Amino acid sequence: MIERKSGDDASVGDDFLTPREGEVTVALPARFDASLYFIGRIRTPWQSSAQCPKNPRESDAVCTVELDSRWVSGLTGLEAVSHVLLLYWMDRTPRDLVLQVPRHYGEQRGTFALRSPARPNPIAVSVARLVRIEGNALYVVGVDCLDNTPLLDIKPYFASTDSIPDAVVGWHARGGS
Amino acid sequence: MIERKSGDDASVGDDFLTPREGEVTVALPARFDASLYFIGRIRTPWQSSAQCPKNPRESDAVCTVELDSRWVSGLTGLEAVSHVLLLYWMDRTPRDLVLQVPRHYGEQRGTFALRSPARPNPIAVSVARLVRIEGNALYVVGVDCLDNTPLLDIKPYFASTDSIPDAVVGWHARGGS
Repeated sequence: MIERKSGDDASVGDDFLTPREGEVTVALPARFDASLYFIGRIRTPWQSSAQCPKNPRESDAVCTVELDSRWVSGLTGLEAVSHVLLLYWMDRTPRDLVLQVPRHYGEQRGTFALRSPARPNPIAVSVARLVRIEGNALYVVGVDCLDNTPLLDIKPYFASTDSIPDAVVGWHARGGS
Repeated sequence: MIERKSGDDASVGDDFLTPREGEVTVALPARFDASLYFIGRIRTPWQSSAQCPKNPRESDAVCTVELDSRWVSGLTGLEAVSHVLLLYWMDRTPRDLVLQVPRHYGEQRGTFALRSPARPNPIAVSVARLVRIEGNALYVVGVDCLDNTPLLDIKPYFASTDSIPDAVVGWHARGGS
């Protein structure tokens, strides 16, 4: 493990240009284990991470998920679903950070205790309300990502297995936002 | 798009050895767009998909998420979390199926309207209750995957953004289970 220093090459992306005191990286594995297809793009009004909402509930903007035409028949039946899980790729962040100091919390936390885009596999999971489907386009409310973010997957959201209303994140309840 | 026929090479994995009437595949893209690290393994009591619970709420078994030692300090702060999102890789399924006929529904549905492991990017998302953390091991309740499934990510579950208790999957409510 190495403590990050200013100017460290591991930092890329708007939020990661200036590594913070106390952030720690590890050496990445020598090779990858599996590979992904980008299956579409998420179109949003936000061109920089400074413009993005802080979380998916902060904006009511209707965004568009544009699925590549190859996959369109995979949407069959999805119109009966009120909410979807969207999986997308956050490719502008370092993958070797294990301890981070998020600006809004101000203390050191492990990557797996955070929803930060900086993680070994930068896959985001967002719950979005499905407004309607038109051809290869899904109109959704509840995403907070940059315009043109690569899409990895769309899944139906099942309240029976995906919804835990009384789940707790202890340090979040105590403060920070 | 091609209708799947018996003996199609695209079908691998226990559940996909016998493609069903009405299942449809597409040609996969010529190349991949991004790559993943397996960061650990999920240890469960289930050695075949026939043994696996039908969904993550069906079993109270305590399973173990074994994180590779390289990433262990990424768990700092996670002990304050009641539930985690686990992302894992389901590598025994075809990636080119766009229309599927799940045995328990008996009708054709699009891949993105299903939680089937057969999808272009076979990333599963499961909500699990975190029982305790010991070193590099997370003891969790609420996973339904095969023993030794490759782990991709661990995220804290935030009820404020991840829980939608009244979300509806129309065709699911009407029948099938």
